[in-house]
Amino acid sequence: MSVSKDAKYAYEDFHEGREFQLGPVVVTAEEIVAFARQFDAQPMHLDEAAGKASLLGGLAASGWHMTSLLMRMIADGYLLESTSEGAPGVDRVDWKRPLLAGDSFGGTTKVLSRRLSRSRKGLGLVAFRHELRNQRDELVMVCEHSAMMALRDAERGA
Amino acid sequence: MSVSKDAKYAYEDFHEGREFQLGPVVVTAEEIVAFARQFDAQPMHLDEAAGKASLLGGLAASGWHMTSLLMRMIADGYLLESTSEGAPGVDRVDWKRPLLAGDSFGGTTKVLSRRLSRSRKGLGLVAFRHELRNQRDELVMVCEHSAMMALRDAERGA
Repeated sequence: MSVSKDAKYAYEDFHEGREFQLGPVVVTAEEIVAFARQFDAQPMHLDEAAGKASLLGGLAASGWHMTSLLMRMIADGYLLESTSEGAPGVDRVDWKRPLLAGDSFGGTTKVLSRRLSRSRKGLGLVAFRHELRNQRDELVMVCEHSAMMALRDAERGA
Repeated sequence: MSVSKDAKYAYEDFHEGREFQLGPVVVTAEEIVAFARQFDAQPMHLDEAAGKASLLGGLAASGWHMTSLLMRMIADGYLLESTSEGAPGVDRVDWKRPLLAGDSFGGTTKVLSRRLSRSRKGLGLVAFRHELRNQRDELVMVCEHSAMMALRDAERGA
């Protein structure tokens, strides 16, 4: 993505401690099964009875479906209006509780820290922590990762 | 998933250093765009020209599409024939290179270590490292995570 001075959120806007709302979305049985058929055909992601018989207690979304839903909420929450140039990876994902058919999934993103790139002028790295909860306010997933964000003032940095 | 004595791979079979083949699969432009429309609508995942103009150099799969494809290769490679009871999370994902439309994506899983569960008899935790490469044998993604595996001999452990 090219740097746009018009982007709502540039590196400068992601100050430590800033929070963004994520979702919530509601995940349906049909969506859980469709994702599982394509990417994660374990019985507890395909079938209500198998889910009930598993540790998860019901038809449950694949953990990678959960991270993909998080990505959607990040995109809608701030990323598509930002100067993001992508992410080098993920520092950690914790699947704390199952996300079952009909559950709500949403929460907050918090900026943990940020620093200017050592190698590229006009670019910074922002570390985020995402906490996602269900409709009972139970913590369902935590994810931490960093993203590269262009500076609004591209003459700064490095 | 209930423990099956007939499973091809139980905890006992995941000895340190054991390797499994993953894929390869070939990712198409249509699949990249379909995933992006649903979960990650950044321009470089939706449009060839936008991808070429980005750091990624072409229409590139979302990083979460890549992890989902990894999950599919894990499922087909060993997980669906194992005593897996799910995974508590992901220790690390590194997106090293873009996965572009038409690229091949595959590699190996290696068992890094394993230990018996401290809290549940008959269960163990196996740590895996997945390395995925493209058709030019370039490293594209690395992922490390642990999975819970039931023991074939459920009387052992804890």
